[in-house]
Amino acid sequence: MAATTRRRVTANGEFQENGGGQRPTAGTRRRPSSAGSSGSGSTPLWRVAVFASVALNVATLALLLHHYAISHPWRDSSPAPDACVLEEPGMSGKSEARREELGTKDRASAAMTPSTGKPAVTTDSVINLDHGDPTMFEAFWRETGPLAEIVIPGWQTMSYFSDVGNVCWFLEPEFGRQVRRLHRTVRNAAAGDEYHVVVGTGSTQLFMAALYALAPSDAGGPIGVVSTSPYYSSYPAVTDFLRSGLFQWAGDANSFKGDEYIELVCSPNNPDGAIRDAVLSSEAGKTVHDLAYYWPQYTPITAEAAHDIMLFTVSKSTGHAGTRIGWALVKDREVAKRMTKFVELNTIGVSKDSQLRAAKVLSAVSDGYDDMGSGARHRHRHRLFDFGRRKMVERWAMLRAAVAASGIFSLPEETSGHCNFTNDAAANNPAFAWLRCDREDVEDCAGFLRGHKILTRSGSQFGADPRYVRVSMLDRDDAYGIFVSRLASLK
Amino acid sequence: MAATTRRRVTANGEFQENGGGQRPTAGTRRRPSSAGSSGSGSTPLWRVAVFASVALNVATLALLLHHYAISHPWRDSSPAPDACVLEEPGMSGKSEARREELGTKDRASAAMTPSTGKPAVTTDSVINLDHGDPTMFEAFWRETGPLAEIVIPGWQTMSYFSDVGNVCWFLEPEFGRQVRRLHRTVRNAAAGDEYHVVVGTGSTQLFMAALYALAPSDAGGPIGVVSTSPYYSSYPAVTDFLRSGLFQWAGDANSFKGDEYIELVCSPNNPDGAIRDAVLSSEAGKTVHDLAYYWPQYTPITAEAAHDIMLFTVSKSTGHAGTRIGWALVKDREVAKRMTKFVELNTIGVSKDSQLRAAKVLSAVSDGYDDMGSGARHRHRHRLFDFGRRKMVERWAMLRAAVAASGIFSLPEETSGHCNFTNDAAANNPAFAWLRCDREDVEDCAGFLRGHKILTRSGSQFGADPRYVRVSMLDRDDAYGIFVSRLASLK
Repeated sequence: MAATTRRRVTANGEFQENGGGQRPTAGTRRRPSSAGSSGSGSTPLWRVAVFASVALNVATLALLLHHYAISHPWRDSSPAPDACVLEEPGMSGKSEARREELGTKDRASAAMTPSTGKPAVTTDSVINLDHGDPTMFEAFWRETGPLAEIVIPGWQTMSYFSDVGNVCWFLEPEFGRQVRRLHRTVRNAAAGDEYHVVVGTGSTQLFMAALYALAPSDAGGPIGVVSTSPYYSSYPAVTDFLRSGLFQWAGDANSFKGDEYIELVCSPNNPDGAIRDAVLSSEAGKTVHDLAYYWPQYTPITAEAAHDIMLFTVSKSTGHAGTRIGWALVKDREVAKRMTKFVELNTIGVSKDSQLRAAKVLSAVSDGYDDMGSGARHRHRHRLFDFGRRKMVERWAMLRAAVAASGIFSLPEETSGHCNFTNDAAANNPAFAWLRCDREDVEDCAGFLRGHKILTRSGSQFGADPRYVRVSMLDRDDAYGIFVSRLASLK
Repeated sequence: MAATTRRRVTANGEFQENGGGQRPTAGTRRRPSSAGSSGSGSTPLWRVAVFASVALNVATLALLLHHYAISHPWRDSSPAPDACVLEEPGMSGKSEARREELGTKDRASAAMTPSTGKPAVTTDSVINLDHGDPTMFEAFWRETGPLAEIVIPGWQTMSYFSDVGNVCWFLEPEFGRQVRRLHRTVRNAAAGDEYHVVVGTGSTQLFMAALYALAPSDAGGPIGVVSTSPYYSSYPAVTDFLRSGLFQWAGDANSFKGDEYIELVCSPNNPDGAIRDAVLSSEAGKTVHDLAYYWPQYTPITAEAAHDIMLFTVSKSTGHAGTRIGWALVKDREVAKRMTKFVELNTIGVSKDSQLRAAKVLSAVSDGYDDMGSGARHRHRHRLFDFGRRKMVERWAMLRAAVAASGIFSLPEETSGHCNFTNDAAANNPAFAWLRCDREDVEDCAGFLRGHKILTRSGSQFGADPRYVRVSMLDRDDAYGIFVSRLASLK
């Protein structure tokens, strides 16, 4: 199976096409990485100190890895208040048994043999962290049992229509309600009656829908679509693959000249986790805010966002990428109507099965935080963001230790802020690591890592220097552990 | 609720944009409709005979309507062999009770309140038959109970990936297996190892994927996309809405000049049910076969289709439009790869929840026909195509009787053939009626019917004369009954 994976990924370069307009530029402000909270700083001036530091880092990393792989993976870590009290230890060892047990219970789905995503890995495997496959969250959802389970009878939701009176006529009302409820819970974005909810087949479809809705239909040529470099590699690829006469990729927002444009603002940013604002401003300019990662597991929630168009997805908020559900919060009714029209022409609506499943999952997340702090009776609550933040803190500590141990990489500086959701200071723990290879002789970091059986996405695909790569931080524990361990050994 | 529907549909013209290239042309060969199998022929030369005929038709229609609305809707009708023995009478009266009963059983989904499609109708309602909403099939699936029910645990199918070794890496293997199995059962299309299965968010996405895959990327301008008029109204709209530089709508295939083109062949054809072959032929020309309606409930299965690209959808085969699942059978590996790439860039794959549900539903259909004819132990089998054909035969008889009773409409001539699947002679019973208003003073049939609170789609959207309309034959019993009754009264 490992051989199959390798062949496919290297042969096809899946699932990211090289977009247009790649101008190598510098990444965000950075310093050589320290071991973060779990290790000591390094001082390159004295060799002895370097040696001591590296040794310390290696020891720390070994301890962390041991702790991570063997014992309870998220107990005793972050000191967040209202800590999620998951009494059960880690899942990895029990997952097969659980699957069989659930398989027996689920008489209906048992025969359908769902896929399990990427094949299992061993210490010799190619580790594919090219895509942000959010399988890290499986461990959490295995614990929730029936709370997030859904049953769909054969005769249900067969019609094309969900809500004929709504601007978005294919939106399942319950999904819309759960979206608004979750935003009220987390306070990461305004989602009251002043916003329309438009559902999409993942946020990628909604990104295209927004371009379609915002592009002037009477313009002589396509409107320019821009984003500050490094930008999400899908932006140029998705904008240009059909060679639309309505919109066209125009590269880095910082070098754009003109009044008419659509600026994409991804914050926290994919690939580098930076907190972003729009850099352009004009009467005729339009902005789309991609807030896929603006959730408490990745970043402190410092304010309630209230932009014109805000995109979200369950892939990153809850980890349900296979469900292919995204949503847009849209202020302007006409824009919401045109986005709806796009989805109608593109796919005649969005899977109702997935919308109902996503509604169930979002509901389970909000349930975990209803009546926060009311004491003992909530001790057994399943709290997604507690789980997520603890995992991310742990993984970033591991990564910083590995980078320090290796000595040839660097990472963006850690930032932090006050999180209104958890009401404490929290670090930015991005879903991707924006890793730079500092070794002089390595100009293509992705190629260098591929040689060590680690698949990442080259900086060149993000309009940045190929000395950078983007690495997914959201894979399963075993794959992530092997990656960190392998990275630490590179000199 | 009826007012809401009306407002929405008339205000937005949903869910079909007026495509380009509409050249009014004649429809298929036709004659004034007779009452088909259930009435007598009409002879316009003698007034007395006309009067007698109309009276007879009205009486026949009244009888049929009574039978349809009051008693068991599909018992005792078509004489198909291996008749589906559904012991229960019609569902309409019991549906709410059933829903509540199932709601109680399904502890998990109960709280999620799925939508039920278009609002219920009364004899005064606007009847919306503009879209082919296949809710007719709900009655069948209500009877199948757990056979088509699916349970999805919260932790399942979270990864983007389904089958990393396959050309279509997001295809759930079980869905692929059930697709091939159903085609083996029905023998309507070749689906062995020589074909790749590509899954899409409905067949509309796969239609776009096929255009993307077939358009030459190095051509100077967009390739022309054509289809014989009357053609499916979505073809021009979907081809042109993004103003792609790769492909462009070029109208009726019969008037196309040139060697390079993509010809869309829909058979049985939407809107008129005609059996179609490609009309163009050249080395550089490409063909896409849209076989959405090539199933035994709509038409005799006269041969196993084996074209280069064949499109199907659960919306029309099983009635699960809300699930948004289509599939393509594709001979050429490179074309399958490019179609996969399109879906990847457009929506990063296809809902796994829907794929698993569709797999379950297709499996239930095939199960109904395993070991056909082995006697009594199969008497309680649920057989979708038996149900579907019986309903369609009944509905077409009702419609022909209503048209004869009214006297101002005509329908395409009924055709028939030998069905290899049921091994008997069967009529073509299209999923849409292509209705012509013959009254001299009516130039806009859709507008005329709208005045009588019947929403249909104008012939002008299909590249044909606006004296024609397309009417869905797949709505729920109550809506269809009101439509037929209302139509019969128009003079």
